Amino acid sequence: MRILLVLAHPAPASFNAALAVRSRQALLDLGHEVIFHDLHAEGFDPLLWTEEFPEGAPLPPAIEEHCRDLETADGVVIVHPNWWGMPPAIMKGWIDRVFRPGRAYRFLEGDNGEGVPQGLLPARAVVVFNTGNTPLEREQEAFGDPLERLWRDCVFGLCGSPQFFRRLFGVVCLSGVAQRQAWLDEAAALLARAFPAA
Amino acid sequence: MRILLVLAHPAPASFNAALAVRSRQALLDLGHEVIFHDLHAEGFDPLLWTEEFPEGAPLPPAIEEHCRDLETADGVVIVHPNWWGMPPAIMKGWIDRVFRPGRAYRFLEGDNGEGVPQGLLPARAVVVFNTGNTPLEREQEAFGDPLERLWRDCVFGLCGSPQFFRRLFGVVCLSGVAQRQAWLDEAAALLARAFPAA
Repeated sequence: MRILLVLAHPAPASFNAALAVRSRQALLDLGHEVIFHDLHAEGFDPLLWTEEFPEGAPLPPAIEEHCRDLETADGVVIVHPNWWGMPPAIMKGWIDRVFRPGRAYRFLEGDNGEGVPQGLLPARAVVVFNTGNTPLEREQEAFGDPLERLWRDCVFGLCGSPQFFRRLFGVVCLSGVAQRQAWLDEAAALLARAFPAA
Repeated sequence: MRILLVLAHPAPASFNAALAVRSRQALLDLGHEVIFHDLHAEGFDPLLWTEEFPEGAPLPPAIEEHCRDLETADGVVIVHPNWWGMPPAIMKGWIDRVFRPGRAYRFLEGDNGEGVPQGLLPARAVVVFNTGNTPLEREQEAFGDPLERLWRDCVFGLCGSPQFFRRLFGVVCLSGVAQRQAWLDEAAALLARAFPAA
């Protein structure tokens, strides 16, 4: 399988970066091809301007490459911290610019944009790894853990991916080396379930 | 009252821009002072890098100004479209960079970041205007309308603002001039309730 792995965290020494490195290795060990994007490292520009609104609009080469990577991926792995119940701005902009009409989803004939779009992404499974400093019970009770529905329903559900897995790791700021090692092992095990070896 | 008004939409002719223009005039008519930021027009940089993580870190002048505008506002008005259940990336970055520890919220002594922070913003009321092309019932049923909890609980609830108002206008892509005019009037009426004339 061809797996797209996307990381959003500005610190190369972060636990998020460690999750991405371990995910990449786990996927390679399973025999998959991995396309890896570290959005901060590559200087991804997250701003969607009106020129790119129309379906079929010409795109900058970097955005065109991201679109092709997404629409040819058999699976997608997303890694980012929970910032205010949402992804960091750079990953929000990756969604804004790369999940395009006519490529990630389309409206049926006669639909002016208000209807239920048809998902076009071929990814059979999506895995989202998040990190947070809010205890998991409080994240659920006080905030409703918005990242679950955002990624599952608003983004990948709309674009047609049938299988969704997610794990919110935390509390990261209180965790030690052994705990983080166990979390990395857990991430690798989840990837093996989502993307079994051929 | 001193009201901070923040717009995120790249098109000056958008209905979002019209909502911001009408909001500004309505607030002035009520006798309030208005600090207006059009994030796309001012070229706001939404990327938070690690240098700005620590409490008290030195900030670029533009970010320092945004922080001061937020922490001196008696009220806040937010205007943006619903993109994937979230704000556009530029507004997400405004949250990431401007809602800072020690200024918008703080952790109590002995708390390493995992506890319940204390909100520091003086804004007595917050109004969020969103636009969308998904019928409101489907937005609620299929996606859970994540913007409600994101703004109310994850952002302004955490930072201490006691009163929250929100209106999601739609379906915008099917609306005509009369409908939009009625929506602008409705926005002005809501602002008069949230921020009564002195």
